[in-house]
Amino acid sequence: MIEKPKDAALRERAKRVIPNGMYGHMAIGARMPQNYPQFFSRADGARLWDVDGNEYIDYICSFGPMILGYNDARVNQSAASQRERLDIANGPTEAVVLLAEQMVSMVSHADWAIFSKNGNDATTTCVMAARAYRGKSKVLVADGAYHGAQPWANRRAPGAPSTEHDAFPTYQYNDVTSLEEAVRQNAGDIGGIMVSPFRHDAGFPQEDVNADFARAARRLADENDAALILDDVRAGFRLSLDASWSRVGVQPDLSAWGKALANGEPIAATLGSAKFRDAMEHVFITGSFWYQAAPMAAARTTLTILEQENCPAYLLKIGNRLRDGMDEIARRRQVPLSQTGPVAMPAVMFEEDPKFEMGYAFCNGLLDRGVYFHPWHNMFLSMAHTEADIDKTLEAVDETLRTISI
Amino acid sequence: MIEKPKDAALRERAKRVIPNGMYGHMAIGARMPQNYPQFFSRADGARLWDVDGNEYIDYICSFGPMILGYNDARVNQSAASQRERLDIANGPTEAVVLLAEQMVSMVSHADWAIFSKNGNDATTTCVMAARAYRGKSKVLVADGAYHGAQPWANRRAPGAPSTEHDAFPTYQYNDVTSLEEAVRQNAGDIGGIMVSPFRHDAGFPQEDVNADFARAARRLADENDAALILDDVRAGFRLSLDASWSRVGVQPDLSAWGKALANGEPIAATLGSAKFRDAMEHVFITGSFWYQAAPMAAARTTLTILEQENCPAYLLKIGNRLRDGMDEIARRRQVPLSQTGPVAMPAVMFEEDPKFEMGYAFCNGLLDRGVYFHPWHNMFLSMAHTEADIDKTLEAVDETLRTISI
Repeated sequence: MIEKPKDAALRERAKRVIPNGMYGHMAIGARMPQNYPQFFSRADGARLWDVDGNEYIDYICSFGPMILGYNDARVNQSAASQRERLDIANGPTEAVVLLAEQMVSMVSHADWAIFSKNGNDATTTCVMAARAYRGKSKVLVADGAYHGAQPWANRRAPGAPSTEHDAFPTYQYNDVTSLEEAVRQNAGDIGGIMVSPFRHDAGFPQEDVNADFARAARRLADENDAALILDDVRAGFRLSLDASWSRVGVQPDLSAWGKALANGEPIAATLGSAKFRDAMEHVFITGSFWYQAAPMAAARTTLTILEQENCPAYLLKIGNRLRDGMDEIARRRQVPLSQTGPVAMPAVMFEEDPKFEMGYAFCNGLLDRGVYFHPWHNMFLSMAHTEADIDKTLEAVDETLRTISI
Repeated sequence: MIEKPKDAALRERAKRVIPNGMYGHMAIGARMPQNYPQFFSRADGARLWDVDGNEYIDYICSFGPMILGYNDARVNQSAASQRERLDIANGPTEAVVLLAEQMVSMVSHADWAIFSKNGNDATTTCVMAARAYRGKSKVLVADGAYHGAQPWANRRAPGAPSTEHDAFPTYQYNDVTSLEEAVRQNAGDIGGIMVSPFRHDAGFPQEDVNADFARAARRLADENDAALILDDVRAGFRLSLDASWSRVGVQPDLSAWGKALANGEPIAATLGSAKFRDAMEHVFITGSFWYQAAPMAAARTTLTILEQENCPAYLLKIGNRLRDGMDEIARRRQVPLSQTGPVAMPAVMFEEDPKFEMGYAFCNGLLDRGVYFHPWHNMFLSMAHTEADIDKTLEAVDETLRTISI
């Protein structure tokens, strides 16, 4: 493996002043194979450089935010120009109105928008609006689904008493019977049913939504006068330029967006239908930096480009090139490669590899060849990934699978 | 009152696509006297311009973030230079280590740092670390104190079932007996005691902390092997360059910071003592944009300047000039003006004015004279406020109090 002395030195310093040396989904030391760099120094297009100067074709895209490419000059220009005039003040700029208008016209179910910072702010806003609608407190969530790391959404670690999760009963994704059962058990107190656009739980093969399940969720929300809440934070704009369940013809009442919305500038959004406007008007939720104008200007430019260049179609095209190419290599080399999830957000794992030993060896090998994959999380394609990038990646995949024993 | 046609037109458009036309603490239409503009277009130093071009000396400072002055060239340069290299990626830049080192060396109780986006992220991280420490679930909070608008911290509006607040029993600020009583009632399950640096509840006269109360809070936390959590999000760096209870000789175990930390760039921080490091290492909390490098670079420069120029001393000096000048005017004009809170964060109200009728008339008059005060929230001074600004403000105060009937 390629030595990374600057990264190692920074990790040592980090350990003294940051618990575990890093936290959350970016705690590389605690979560990832040894060859992954913790610290980065430069990015451009689909390329990322770690602090030791190693270059990677990046398939994580900052875990989603980067959708047009790092350092996109058009988005940078919009943000810089807004920042020069005004970023934050005692009230927002007109950018908040323009962006709300743009999103409402773009997303079918949306009649209004509320902007915040991180995806979890947006999912929380959805929960509060759903509860405020009829005063019912429970929001059903899929077992194992990620809707953020704030206590209500976080069952994985200490820090939240389990009673805080009593208000979030679970069902099994894509399982109509289990959803019906969860509805039955909580009848009369269901404020909302929260769904992911597809099953994108980390550590598992991904599973696209079944249209029957989506229609059942819509029906059960209606029968219970509750909100159907779509958490489109992770998938938003990569699968559709509308809410992601538009692909199966189902519209939510409330939707949460973030990550790719402004190509890396920090902003999230909650969109809602007219039916939930009055409820939202009774909710007080806010944050010091939620009204920042520069990310709103960046979002407007990002959305315009995503529409003009039909992002989902492009990601489907290069995603299929990657998937087909890897399938061919896996067949030829007789490797049990598993590719799941939408092609724009592929999860690459190996069959019968519960501890990701094969995945870790594979990803370590790719890193040495200048390709940044993830062994157990869905990955993200971007409009900066070219056919040449995919072909170079396929060469690295082929070479890696030739040299490691799987 | 000065007409604001552009503001009015934007408000009309906003009402169609944003519930209530605006949300949270920036919902001017729902929360503030009629003369307040909702939308702004430019800011520089201590000056703010609304979308109709009206200029104000600003005493809200974006509700805290602006501490060096809007558009500070030194901070802008740091952020821009970092942004040019790298803002977000699949891991942070070295800026996260440098900023953690800087804050740990600056704040006495701190041995480690975790960065997030908004103050509420930081207070939530404190709550989770406190609970993870001994597995105890309750965190005592002062009745009426603001620690954010996420459901656990938000009792003011629908959206959170009241059972979510059972884990946050209340005491009365500065009342040792009530704190002791809350401790007694929750003995055995107290993870933390959360305190504000002073009582800065909106809508009430402000009240500085009583040293006996601070010492009692420290003692009760220790006796219960629980965390003393200081929410320094609002006051941080304006009263002290250390945690704000350093002024009364009391150090917390965990502290939350935000707002002024990067002079308007979006970042918050949780600082902790060595004792709580292991607990923090077991907490999973994160957000898509928590690792952004540009706000970290901006924070480093902001903190350096705050230290070099001794921000708290400067704010005390101009704050006293404002307070003394207004006291003199109020005496001369025989107006029952009430000035409470630390001079760097003054709350200006009128005695026996429960509906803020006098306050509203006063603030409306000041707005027409180019001064932006707040009728029921603590205000914020900054290092961009000059003696000339204060003197011009005093003239506006004198003139307003001459013309309105109070």
